[in-house]
Amino acid sequence: MSRVKPAIFVTQVTAWENGAARRVDDCLAAEEPLEISVNGQPFGLTLRTPGNDLDLVAGLLFSEGVISGYGQIASIEMGADEERRASGNHVSVELTRGMAVASTATGRKFTAGSACGICGKAAIDDLKQRGLSRPDRGSRFEADILCTLPEKLRQAQTNFSRTGGLHAAALFDARGNLLILHEDIGRHNAVDKVIGSALKSKKIPLTGHILLASGRGGFEIVQKAIVAGVPLLASVSAPSSLAVQLAREMGITLVGFLRGRRFVIYANDERLSRR
Amino acid sequence: MSRVKPAIFVTQVTAWENGAARRVDDCLAAEEPLEISVNGQPFGLTLRTPGNDLDLVAGLLFSEGVISGYGQIASIEMGADEERRASGNHVSVELTRGMAVASTATGRKFTAGSACGICGKAAIDDLKQRGLSRPDRGSRFEADILCTLPEKLRQAQTNFSRTGGLHAAALFDARGNLLILHEDIGRHNAVDKVIGSALKSKKIPLTGHILLASGRGGFEIVQKAIVAGVPLLASVSAPSSLAVQLAREMGITLVGFLRGRRFVIYANDERLSRR
Repeated sequence: MSRVKPAIFVTQVTAWENGAARRVDDCLAAEEPLEISVNGQPFGLTLRTPGNDLDLVAGLLFSEGVISGYGQIASIEMGADEERRASGNHVSVELTRGMAVASTATGRKFTAGSACGICGKAAIDDLKQRGLSRPDRGSRFEADILCTLPEKLRQAQTNFSRTGGLHAAALFDARGNLLILHEDIGRHNAVDKVIGSALKSKKIPLTGHILLASGRGGFEIVQKAIVAGVPLLASVSAPSSLAVQLAREMGITLVGFLRGRRFVIYANDERLSRR
Repeated sequence: MSRVKPAIFVTQVTAWENGAARRVDDCLAAEEPLEISVNGQPFGLTLRTPGNDLDLVAGLLFSEGVISGYGQIASIEMGADEERRASGNHVSVELTRGMAVASTATGRKFTAGSACGICGKAAIDDLKQRGLSRPDRGSRFEADILCTLPEKLRQAQTNFSRTGGLHAAALFDARGNLLILHEDIGRHNAVDKVIGSALKSKKIPLTGHILLASGRGGFEIVQKAIVAGVPLLASVSAPSSLAVQLAREMGITLVGFLRGRRFVIYANDERLSRR
């Protein structure tokens, strides 16, 4: 039996306002370490909000290129043994026969270009060498529908309003229907949970879909979206220079600052109707 | 010669508002990989906003427990050779004779408790085993001064207002004077830059000081503050459950949701005057 771990903790805190202090109950987003082992070997450790841990690990292995499909997972379960199952903080993965695993896949390793040392270009080239294909060029999305998504995300975020401390990622179809939503203290974890969940239900590549992430859109978030084959990645905040560069080179539409009736298109605006 | 890399990039984007799209110039926060080597061996790789890279690496080595003081750094420079110096994305550190380095210190490795597997308690126990001392109990801070700090941080953040995509961390004295401020796309990097900078100028332990971080206060941010000996860590957003647990066990005052004339004290409120 594995315990179902809470995603929220309640604790007493001191609320200060205009010189008056009082003790009140407060909800905290849970953060706990998760140990991952693959084929019996330690693979990595991440701090995450408990919940949908199997999706998190499947999504992480997929977006890091350890697996290229859910069929390469022979088994995935909470805990390799009784003790670790009881901790609720261990996921054990067995890959199908013949799958080798780089021993420390949690550390980012880019191939440094021989001429210039490590740089943004080397990081992008490294991804290209994984043979990732560009998201489909045929998908089209309506700006008016895009503008409705952040509000749908917020309404579906059951834990954010109670803690104010959880990121979320969500998958929508082109009509704006919410298909998958996950929350986590880590932006990357929330996206991995969504991708792992989509992978399990055989939705990848995510042709014709929109991935919406709270928080900023950095290089690694764009990378995950490309690996999942999403043609449109949107976030409510700013992308980084390297995220924009990667999005332009790999042909994914990147939207930022999606707020109210406004947004900014940083890459490949041809997929968005101007209406 | 090492290049001074820009912290901001300007690019053309499509701004959409209420059905009208136009091409405009936009500022992006720079994100580039930084390769770190220690004693000639690869130590790790991080994505960061270029600038104050030596402070970033010194702060990272210190908060991860690789060094316990700046005196253990024999040399620290951009690039081990001409090529990598030219990339502007490599920092080479030589430690004083006899200092050994764990080979992959970038991966978090907690000692799993034998009885319960990995858990929050194991993560905290692992920190305690590093022999960290509790921040000084004598420091006292005024709530009224605390409330002025976020605005001071924002005014001093030169790049945030142009990009909307940079985190910041700042060190203040108890009177609310801003001493050190650094920006980065990564919350952890911004804090490491501040700690590295304080370490270099022999300000650590940071008795009587306040560390203010934009974004949320997770386990790792609290860990860094404790290692630096800061008695008060404040953030404008929510802490996690593990961050609060760590702060309570290690005796650091943890403030969250510091906004306007309000804040929440999650741990050790005795250091704050009620006025």
